[in-house]
Amino acid sequence: MLPFRLIMAEAVFPGSFDPVTHGHIDIITRAASIFDSVTVAILNHPDKVGFFTVPERMAMLEEQVREISPHVRVDCFSGLLVDYLAARKARVIIRGLRAISDYDYEVQMALMNKSLREDIETVFLVAREANSFISSSIVRQVATLGGDISKFVPKNVVQAVLNKIAVKK
Amino acid sequence: MLPFRLIMAEAVFPGSFDPVTHGHIDIITRAASIFDSVTVAILNHPDKVGFFTVPERMAMLEEQVREISPHVRVDCFSGLLVDYLAARKARVIIRGLRAISDYDYEVQMALMNKSLREDIETVFLVAREANSFISSSIVRQVATLGGDISKFVPKNVVQAVLNKIAVKK
Amino acid sequence: MLPFRLIMAEAVFPGSFDPVTHGHIDIITRAASIFDSVTVAILNHPDKVGFFTVPERMAMLEEQVREISPHVRVDCFSGLLVDYLAARKARVIIRGLRAISDYDYEVQMALMNKSLREDIETVFLVAREANSFISSSIVRQVATLGGDISKFVPKNVVQAVLNKIAVKK
Amino acid sequence: MLPFRLIMAEAVFPGSFDPVTHGHIDIITRAASIFDSVTVAILNHPDKVGFFTVPERMAMLEEQVREISPHVRVDCFSGLLVDYLAARKARVIIRGLRAISDYDYEVQMALMNKSLREDIETVFLVAREANSFISSSIVRQVATLGGDISKFVPKNVVQAVLNKIAVKK
Amino acid sequence: MLPFRLIMAEAVFPGSFDPVTHGHIDIITRAASIFDSVTVAILNHPDKVGFFTVPERMAMLEEQVREISPHVRVDCFSGLLVDYLAARKARVIIRGLRAISDYDYEVQMALMNKSLREDIETVFLVAREANSFISSSIVRQVATLGGDISKFVPKNVVQAVLNKIAVKK
Amino acid sequence: MLPFRLIMAEAVFPGSFDPVTHGHIDIITRAASIFDSVTVAILNHPDKVGFFTVPERMAMLEEQVREISPHVRVDCFSGLLVDYLAARKARVIIRGLRAISDYDYEVQMALMNKSLREDIETVFLVAREANSFISSSIVRQVATLGGDISKFVPKNVVQAVLNKIAVKK
Repeated sequence: MLPFRLIMAEAVFPGSFDPVTHGHIDIITRAASIFDSVTVAILNHPDKVGFFTVPERMAMLEEQVREISPHVRVDCFSGLLVDYLAARKARVIIRGLRAISDYDYEVQMALMNKSLREDIETVFLVAREANSFISSSIVRQVATLGGDISKFVPKNVVQAVLNKIAVKK
Repeated sequence: MLPFRLIMAEAVFPGSFDPVTHGHIDIITRAASIFDSVTVAILNHPDKVGFFTVPERMAMLEEQVREISPHVRVDCFSGLLVDYLAARKARVIIRGLRAISDYDYEVQMALMNKSLREDIETVFLVAREANSFISSSIVRQVATLGGDISKFVPKNVVQAVLNKIAVKK
Repeated sequence: MLPFRLIMAEAVFPGSFDPVTHGHIDIITRAASIFDSVTVAILNHPDKVGFFTVPERMAMLEEQVREISPHVRVDCFSGLLVDYLAARKARVIIRGLRAISDYDYEVQMALMNKSLREDIETVFLVAREANSFISSSIVRQVATLGGDISKFVPKNVVQAVLNKIAVKK
Repeated sequence: MLPFRLIMAEAVFPGSFDPVTHGHIDIITRAASIFDSVTVAILNHPDKVGFFTVPERMAMLEEQVREISPHVRVDCFSGLLVDYLAARKARVIIRGLRAISDYDYEVQMALMNKSLREDIETVFLVAREANSFISSSIVRQVATLGGDISKFVPKNVVQAVLNKIAVKK
Repeated sequence: MLPFRLIMAEAVFPGSFDPVTHGHIDIITRAASIFDSVTVAILNHPDKVGFFTVPERMAMLEEQVREISPHVRVDCFSGLLVDYLAARKARVIIRGLRAISDYDYEVQMALMNKSLREDIETVFLVAREANSFISSSIVRQVATLGGDISKFVPKNVVQAVLNKIAVKK
Repeated sequence: MLPFRLIMAEAVFPGSFDPVTHGHIDIITRAASIFDSVTVAILNHPDKVGFFTVPERMAMLEEQVREISPHVRVDCFSGLLVDYLAARKARVIIRGLRAISDYDYEVQMALMNKSLREDIETVFLVAREANSFISSSIVRQVATLGGDISKFVPKNVVQAVLNKIAVKK
C-alpha cells in the first residue's frame, strides 16, 4: 500500500527551450493548472552550443512564465534528469507530445527514467493547436531564411531571434 | 494569471475494465502516487452489453484498488466523461498509452474533451511492461479459446472470467 | 511523354459526410483554391443506414459549399469511386489526412484506386486545426451524450443533429 | 545453454485467407525458402461466417501452394494458435507485415503468444510490392462493387470470387 | 467566397534530388498529369555540401524530365520555399510520401508553410512501388559500399554516381 | 518451384553492438532457437569511430554468446551486408524490432537488401520486455551522465562502459 502523500506535488518540465515556443507555453500553462508547482528546467548540455545561451533562454522563459502563475519557476540543470528531480524531491516529469515520431523517443526516455528511479513518473500532455506542432529547430531554420516566426513564438522571442541572427552573420 | 489552487487534485481514470488487467492496475498505482486521489470510473454504456456486468466489474476493481491506496475509489458513470468530472469538480483525466494505434484515438478524445471543457486536462502514462500492452478484449478472446490468462489479469479475475465463460456456454 | 492537358482538372472529394464537419469544409475550401472545380461526392452505401439520409447530407453540404465557390458542387454516387470519376472524366481524388491511423487506410485505398485505374491520382491535404482531427462519428457520439458540438460542425448542422437525435429517441 | 536442435523447423503461417491474395503467396514463397517446411493454417472461427467456406479457401490455397514447394502444406485449425503449434511440435509462427496499423496488432499477438508458450517464436516478413498491401477484405469489397481484382489475387481466385458474388445476390 | 481562378496552376516539387531516384520520377510524372505545369526545384543549401553539385543535379534531372512532359521544368532556389513560390505566383507544393517517419516531418513543414503563406497549399502523392521507398541517402550509401543501384535510379544517374565515388576516393 | 533445401539455414544478426544490450541478447537467444546457426556480425564502419573498438565489442559479445548456444558465433564485416551473407552462403538476416521509428528504417533496409539479392530474406523478431526498447546510444548517454545502466546491459558490459568513460575523460 502506498504511503499517505504529504508533500506538495512538484512537476518538472525539462527541455532545451532554444527558444521557447507557443507550444511550450501551452504545456506550461496546462501543467500549472494541475500540479501544485511547475519547474521549467533547461538542460545545460556541456558539449553542445545552443542558438541562445542558457542564461538568454532562462531570461526569455522567465518573462513568459511570470504571466502564467507564481507557482511556475525557471531553472537549469546538467547531468541526469532523474537526479535533478530527486535532489528537488520532485516526482513528476511533464512532457508535451506532438506528432508520432516524438512519441517513440519520448516513450524510450520515459521507460529509461522509470528504470533509473522507480518513484518518478512521466506524464504526457498533448499539444492542442496545429502551430504547437512546430519545433524550436524549425523556428530557427525559418527565421534564418527570413521567414516570419511570430505565429510560433512570443513577441519578445521574435526580436531576440532576429538580433541573434544579425549577430551571427 | 491562473488562480491559486486550493482544492485537492482528483484524477479520474475512465474505461471499460471488462475485465481489469495488470496493465490497468499499473496505471492506477502510478496515478495514485502523483495525484491526491484517483477515481477509477467505469463507463456504463446503455446500449452495449459487456462480458461482465458493471457491478461485477466494480467488485473486481474494488478488490484490487483496496491494496493500492485508500485514496483510490471505484465508481461508474454514464453520459459525457467531462460532465462526470465537472460534477465531481475533478479536472484531470488519466489515460494509459499502449501502442501506436491507441495513441491516435486517445489524442482525438483528449482534444475533444479539451474542447468540451477548457479546464479539464488529459494526462497520459505509458504502459511499462510488455504484458501491459495486452487489452481486455484480447484477454477475453484467449480465455474463451482455453488459453491461460494468469499473466495478464489478477488472480480473482482469472477465476471470474472462467466462471463467466462456463455460464455463457 | 504525356499528352498536352486540354480538359479542366476536376477533383472529387468523396466521403460519408454524416454529417459534414469544419474539418471537411477546410479541405473543400483549400481544394477549391487549387483545382478548376471540386465535386463533393457522398458515397451511397446500399446496405448501410447512416445517421442522416443521403438527401439530408446533400442539403447540409450544399448550404455550406454555396459560401465557398461556384466551382464546388455536391453529388452522390454508388459503386466504385474510380468508375464514378471515369464517368465524369475527372482524374483527381482529394483526401484529407488527419492522424496516423487514417494514413494507413488512405494509402491502401490510394494504391487500390491507382491499380484499378492507372490515370487517376489521389492527392492528400493535411488537416490544419486541432479541431479538424475530430471525425463525424465522434461528433455524433458526443452529441448523443448531450455534449456541445458547435466547435466541430457548422451551425445548421448542429441543429440538424439535435433534431435527428430527438426523433431517434 | 540451449539444447542441440534435432528436429526439423516447421513454420506455421496462420490467417483467414478469405481469399488468398498475391501478398499471401509472396510471404508463403519466401517462408518456404528459409524454413524446412511451412504449413498454411486457416483459422476456423466457429461463430464467424466467412465469404468463402473453409473448405473452399483450402482448395484455393492448395492450388496455389502446389506451385511453390512440396514442403508447403495447407491445413485448418480452431482454438488457440499456440496449442495448434504445440500439437504439431512446430515452434515458429510466420506473419507478413504490411502497413503501420498491422504492426501494432501483430506485436500484441506476438507478445501474447510468447506469453502463452515461451518456446514459440513469431517471425515477421515485410510485404514487398505495393499491391501486397491490399487486404482480403478490400479485395472482396472492390469485387462486390464491380472492380477488377486480377492484380491482387491469383486467376483461380478471381473466378471464385465472381461466382460467389453471383450466388450471394 | 473564393475569387475565380484565372491563372494556370503551377505546382512546385522541391527537394535535394541528390541524386534523383525512380521514386522522384514517379512523383514528377504523376504531378505533371494533374497540374498545368510542374517545376522541380532543387534547394540550394548555402552551408551544406552535397554529394553532387547543384548544377550536376539539375543536369541529371533535366535529362529525365525531358521524357516526361514539356510542362515540367527544373530550377533551383535558396531561401524560404514559400517565398520562391510567391515570386513565381505558384500556389501548390508537391510532396511525395513514403513511409511513416516521412509523414510526421512532412506534416510539420506543410503546417509551417501554410502558416507562412495562407494561400499556398501542400498536396501529397503516395509512392507507389516498394522501390520508391528508397531514399537518395540510402542509394548513395549502398553505391559507396559497391552495391548495384540500378533498380533505384535512372541509368544516367548510376554512371554519374559511380564516377563521383571514383573521384572522391 | 523451389529446389529442395539441402544446406543448413544460417542466420546473420548484423548491428553495431556498441555495446551489446539485454535487448540484443534476447534476440540472439530467440534466433538461436529457430535457426540452425546464428552469426552475430558487427558492422565495421571504416569512417566512424565507435564508443568501443570493434575488437572490444567482439570480446564482450563472445562472452555473452558462449552462454547461449555453441551454434552462435561472433564476427565482423565491412561493405554490403548482402555480400557478406552471400560469401557465407547465408540467406537470412535477423533484425529486432523495437518501437515505431525503427520499423520504418528497418523496412527500407529490408526492401533494399531484397532488391540487391533476391534470395536473401530479412526476418523480424519483436523485442519482448520494456527494457529491450532501450538503444545502445541511450545506454551510453545515461552512463556518461552517471546513471546506473545495469538493467540494460550485461554485468561485464557495465564495467567496460565505466572504464571507457574514465579513459575518455
